[in-house]
Amino acid sequence: MTQFDFGDVWLVGAGPGDPDLLTRKAERLIREATVVFYDALVGEGVLALVPPHVRMEPVGKRSGRHSKDQASIDRLIVEAALAGEKVVRLKGGDPAIFARANEELEACRAEGIRVSICPGITAASAAAADLGVSLTLRGLARKLVFVTAHSKNGATLDLDWQSLADKDATLAVYMGKAAAPTVSRKLIEAGLPVDTPVALVENASLGNGTRIVTRLDLLGLTANAALTDKPAVILIGRALGESTFATSGFYGPQQKSVENSGSVGG
Amino acid sequence: MTQFDFGDVWLVGAGPGDPDLLTRKAERLIREATVVFYDALVGEGVLALVPPHVRMEPVGKRSGRHSKDQASIDRLIVEAALAGEKVVRLKGGDPAIFARANEELEACRAEGIRVSICPGITAASAAAADLGVSLTLRGLARKLVFVTAHSKNGATLDLDWQSLADKDATLAVYMGKAAAPTVSRKLIEAGLPVDTPVALVENASLGNGTRIVTRLDLLGLTANAALTDKPAVILIGRALGESTFATSGFYGPQQKSVENSGSVGG
Repeated sequence: MTQFDFGDVWLVGAGPGDPDLLTRKAERLIREATVVFYDALVGEGVLALVPPHVRMEPVGKRSGRHSKDQASIDRLIVEAALAGEKVVRLKGGDPAIFARANEELEACRAEGIRVSICPGITAASAAAADLGVSLTLRGLARKLVFVTAHSKNGATLDLDWQSLADKDATLAVYMGKAAAPTVSRKLIEAGLPVDTPVALVENASLGNGTRIVTRLDLLGLTANAALTDKPAVILIGRALGESTFATSGFYGPQQKSVENSGSVGG
Repeated sequence: MTQFDFGDVWLVGAGPGDPDLLTRKAERLIREATVVFYDALVGEGVLALVPPHVRMEPVGKRSGRHSKDQASIDRLIVEAALAGEKVVRLKGGDPAIFARANEELEACRAEGIRVSICPGITAASAAAADLGVSLTLRGLARKLVFVTAHSKNGATLDLDWQSLADKDATLAVYMGKAAAPTVSRKLIEAGLPVDTPVALVENASLGNGTRIVTRLDLLGLTANAALTDKPAVILIGRALGESTFATSGFYGPQQKSVENSGSVGG
């Protein structure tokens, strides 16, 4: 059994949004907590699982919206733990992947607070499930690469495009909406074929966001036309050619609410 | 709610082993199934959640042991679905990551069977949670790369070492025990510093396997000395230097059952 003592901190992965994709352990931890600090990216259905007697503290972080900075979040967590609370820090996806867990782990350890991680389903896994594809293919997609394409204040994206432009890999780009035209151009310049299959998945697992399969040279256009401000993951590589959506070709913005034909519900 | 009709197939991620790391959705699907085809890698605690009236069919796949080939597994799944069963294909980790989901998806679709994926926690996420680290670090580990290093019958590993030897990335090597000396040598030859932190995690999430933090030039030696035949993931990169195990240095085989100090229980 998971042990959760007063004064402990758990960084808990909330998964992609669908409360059914929460782990059993995460569910138990949020029920045992006395306070839950949560991101804007945590699904509403997940938050609904927090019992009414547990204090809920939104701590922001969504690009473009007012939110607390990382140091303030660290301090809130530490103070709650030192006050003897059972602290859950609930993060969208998996705490170990692009979630700045490191800062929070360090802040807790510096104060001698026992801090642990409960993993979560990351958006790329959920998007693959929505699309009905494997992210890896024997002999064809033997490597899976996760990057973020979030650059602050319009700074140039500093990524190693040559190594990312690997036709034997699947590339999952987190927070890539704004950078989609750059990602498309740079990968093509670095040698990835223009017709490499690309999938854009908003609100993975929730069934209420855009799901589009297109090709690399249309990625920028498609992202601009079809993505909204919901969290999105962009998947690039031959594995996406196997998607159950691939035969449907390009979905324009007028067909945004494409049903998830593979996974029924959630 | 998840819909699971007679004649449907669900590829379900069993996660890393700890039954608490199963998703709520996966738990429901295995309770609703009439038959569960499961890998050798699926945790015993997960199998214990399958109700007694559900038929359990082991379908092997563990390197070095007798097991069914992929085509036979595909056929079993298809035949069960065509016979009107509610079929769960339970796979260790996440079905979309190094799990050959593609073959099973294709086999089902070729027969007009409705097939869906329920994602699972992949071993790298679970290993990071065990170690108490983030796999990504702002500015230092901005890319996360998953590869397998399983080569059949001693064939040479055909990987792009130059692109894998990225000091700003975290590399997760699945099925890498046998290839560990090669991985170490090739990454060093390609320019990765000899003292790059490396973690070896067996039976991630279960707390009963080797957990070692060492350095890249000692990876081969350490893997040979300390890894058994349990499923293992090797994590390489600066992010592992933040591990709560990092200060403990090298654990020899005599200290195999290192307690998971970060995550209490499971």
